[in-house]
Amino acid sequence: MEQLQVEHDSGIYSITIGAGLRHKITDYLPTSYRQVFVITDSHVAPLYLQDVKNAFSKETTVASYVVPAGEHSKSLSVFYDCHTKAIENGIDRESLIVALGGGVVGDLAGYVAASYMRGIDYVQVPTTLLAHDSSVGGKVAINHELGKNMIGHFYQPVAVIYDTETLRTLSKTEWRSGMAEVIKHAWIAKDQSFLEQCYKINSFSDMESDWMNSILYQGIAVKARIVSEDEREQGIRRFLNFGHTLGHAIEAELGYGKITHGEAVAVGMDFALRVSESHFNTDLNRQTYREWISRHHYPITILDQLNTDGLLHRMTRDKKNVQSDIRLVLLSEQGKPEVVSFTVDQIKEELKEYHKEVS
Amino acid sequence: MEQLQVEHDSGIYSITIGAGLRHKITDYLPTSYRQVFVITDSHVAPLYLQDVKNAFSKETTVASYVVPAGEHSKSLSVFYDCHTKAIENGIDRESLIVALGGGVVGDLAGYVAASYMRGIDYVQVPTTLLAHDSSVGGKVAINHELGKNMIGHFYQPVAVIYDTETLRTLSKTEWRSGMAEVIKHAWIAKDQSFLEQCYKINSFSDMESDWMNSILYQGIAVKARIVSEDEREQGIRRFLNFGHTLGHAIEAELGYGKITHGEAVAVGMDFALRVSESHFNTDLNRQTYREWISRHHYPITILDQLNTDGLLHRMTRDKKNVQSDIRLVLLSEQGKPEVVSFTVDQIKEELKEYHKEVS
Repeated sequence: MEQLQVEHDSGIYSITIGAGLRHKITDYLPTSYRQVFVITDSHVAPLYLQDVKNAFSKETTVASYVVPAGEHSKSLSVFYDCHTKAIENGIDRESLIVALGGGVVGDLAGYVAASYMRGIDYVQVPTTLLAHDSSVGGKVAINHELGKNMIGHFYQPVAVIYDTETLRTLSKTEWRSGMAEVIKHAWIAKDQSFLEQCYKINSFSDMESDWMNSILYQGIAVKARIVSEDEREQGIRRFLNFGHTLGHAIEAELGYGKITHGEAVAVGMDFALRVSESHFNTDLNRQTYREWISRHHYPITILDQLNTDGLLHRMTRDKKNVQSDIRLVLLSEQGKPEVVSFTVDQIKEELKEYHKEVS
Repeated sequence: MEQLQVEHDSGIYSITIGAGLRHKITDYLPTSYRQVFVITDSHVAPLYLQDVKNAFSKETTVASYVVPAGEHSKSLSVFYDCHTKAIENGIDRESLIVALGGGVVGDLAGYVAASYMRGIDYVQVPTTLLAHDSSVGGKVAINHELGKNMIGHFYQPVAVIYDTETLRTLSKTEWRSGMAEVIKHAWIAKDQSFLEQCYKINSFSDMESDWMNSILYQGIAVKARIVSEDEREQGIRRFLNFGHTLGHAIEAELGYGKITHGEAVAVGMDFALRVSESHFNTDLNRQTYREWISRHHYPITILDQLNTDGLLHRMTRDKKNVQSDIRLVLLSEQGKPEVVSFTVDQIKEELKEYHKEVS
């Protein structure tokens, strides 16, 4: 079992990583609760919901709500349904919401907690590799039809409890999605060896080995360090958007759920690496990265299916952009991210060149 | 011109009160903005929207969105529409939202600001007497069909700019609604003379006199002191709910918008005073209060139109309740509020007795 602390404006919370933690959630909560409301999805509920319910003592009333699995649940209507169920179950200001699932459930349930009666406690219990990223840092949101994560808050959980046993049931697609964010953390980490460790993964079954925990811990540590320093994304937290400007645009243009978030981000990082190399006139050994993502079947030719103007339109709406410029997180070298502004025309040119190269 | 400061977890903001301030909003903002999005309603827009737009320099782009006047605009769909218009107008993380209007607009626009791209700056520019209360303290929310203000946040404005000239256009109904919250502040204030000043108002036209500004300032000062001390309603801020447990239930049972918030709260306070006198075996001179609210046509017999069980059901769902008890803010004496828990049966009995008395 490993533990990390994340500091924020109004307190601190712990991230606990270990096998079987879902059976002892209450050991890692900062206080006890009389009423608990678990939000999970239709994939996770049959696997772990009962375990989590059983983890609470008999004095605690545990209600739950199961949303449909998938990005579509980060909608205004599912958000409202969660509120309805919480009210109907008598959830009050001193209750706890448990976000049991991957990134979608974490973002949704976190935003429900942030807004329910103006904010109640919640705990992140991630069940995917991707959620090693999204469960840390308090970014919670739902989607607007005009943009991903447009409606949300910075709202910190009271704890993150990561049961590594739940990773055993992940599909290859989910592993692929999660590994993209792990690799993102490796790219922006100062420690060169982290990226090398990631590249050593030859098949996804490797990841069940012991040193997976080490990679996971390192990824979370990068994230935790950054969000402790910059809770509200006014400075270095922006670096976590490496690969995300194009990644989000791809997801939105395809229609959410067509490919996974991590798959889109992997392509976004490839693009950002290409722009980085030319902008900073540097060699980031992008070839090794490209080989790795090809070998693991990331959708590197996805731009074939997409309209450049549509992508550009999405990218100008990205939350980290101010006015109509497009800001990209680039790397001047491995471990040294930087935010660089481009005009729409510049990015249009870069996208065309990139598209030519990959198709 | 008067100024007050409100401290909160992550900073401080100023409340400025004076005639004609809508023309010089930028003088009281802590920084300048390149893009501004004004949210107002169909009553206020024809009166003051252009003045507010003109107050910004030519370098600032000012977009606006006019929502229908009335409580129904604190809905999920209007909230979503505000996000849509903000996105369409290119509002970004460094933009400012202006909440120009009464309590409904303040709550709605404040919550849009709190959730847009996970939170951007906003300024409260109240145009009603009632909003002297709601614009201070950062409580922002929309309604759920099962409860008022169920979906929201604690999110502080960057400034409150109160142009007292806007009060000239208020209807009697709006005056009545606003005065209820002024009197609430007087009841919980330690200064006995504040309540006496309020009672001296014989007709609503009196309130245009100079000493109206004094009453307004005192009301805001009570609110500002309390919210500075307890931003997230974990302690003394609960006292501001004096009269609101029954008040909210009346509004919800009648259907939002049938009577004003303040009218409902005035009746809620009368009930809370009655319960206070019997619970603490004290004399709060309730008779004077009742005479005053009768003289000013508050709906003191409204319980005739309402079902007691319906009210009780609403009261158990009130946000300040924990588990199924009903908590009321009572006064052990004038200026000494206290939160007291009752069972549903106890409140049922109190409501019946109260109803008998007033009908």
